[in-house]
Amino acid sequence: MRRTRFDNDFCPIARATDLMGDWWTPLVMREAFAGSRRFAKFEEGLQIPKAVLSSRLNRLCEEGLLDKVLYQDNPPRHEYRLTDKGRAFWEVLAAMWRWGSDWSWPEGEQPVLALKSRETGEVVQPVVVDELTGERLSLDRIRIGRAPKTES
Amino acid sequence: MRRTRFDNDFCPIARATDLMGDWWTPLVMREAFAGSRRFAKFEEGLQIPKAVLSSRLNRLCEEGLLDKVLYQDNPPRHEYRLTDKGRAFWEVLAAMWRWGSDWSWPEGEQPVLALKSRETGEVVQPVVVDELTGERLSLDRIRIGRAPKTES
Repeated sequence: MRRTRFDNDFCPIARATDLMGDWWTPLVMREAFAGSRRFAKFEEGLQIPKAVLSSRLNRLCEEGLLDKVLYQDNPPRHEYRLTDKGRAFWEVLAAMWRWGSDWSWPEGEQPVLALKSRETGEVVQPVVVDELTGERLSLDRIRIGRAPKTES
Repeated sequence: MRRTRFDNDFCPIARATDLMGDWWTPLVMREAFAGSRRFAKFEEGLQIPKAVLSSRLNRLCEEGLLDKVLYQDNPPRHEYRLTDKGRAFWEVLAAMWRWGSDWSWPEGEQPVLALKSRETGEVVQPVVVDELTGERLSLDRIRIGRAPKTES
């Protein structure tokens, strides 16, 4: 099946979609955020076929979200470390977590898992706000427009 | 190609992934957020094959993000309206927008599009914070744990 690519689209959502559209990719990133670095660890956490995991990890390295690093010479062993670009992707997963928690469970049931603060143990509920004002991003008050030119 | 389904997974990210993994779906939702309701309008905005658009809209209706509503009797015409569940998905797209804008353009180039406030025209930068404290969700200070039981 031929797949439409969005990675050169002018819309930032389209570019992110290009990556997310590889099934498993958000889950591979979830494992990386949970501390997985080695192939076997990802495999164990995800119950994912080796070939699929390998292709997802390679794509994430190509795209610059993970770095493949040699951590042992003999025999050679690699691990996958989050880059800054990869760490920034956490916010996308956090928004998915919130939406999934709020809306993907049947009436009367609730998710067994929650995000918690390491310090206080309190449940953390991700929300998306405007960085400048701290206000929730109400769809009615936002439009898509031309980006201002930045000085360089 | 057989696809692994995640829609019954215990992880909220996995459930959201099940939906996002249909390529085009986030873009169909983007069009809905931008005001599209009719099939032809989605088609025009996305340059998407009719069969693909039709299958994505049907899935989004099944999942409860869109409502298919008869708006004209003769001939019968339908439109697709965002539900509460669909509107809530906006936060996922906003997080994707931010990440895509920050990280998916080559060095020295910048996105031509920006999110703007309808009132002030200022550029809006989505960030993900803890709803309770308003603090950025630092990965180092968060863990995944068992959700507390709520009274019912």
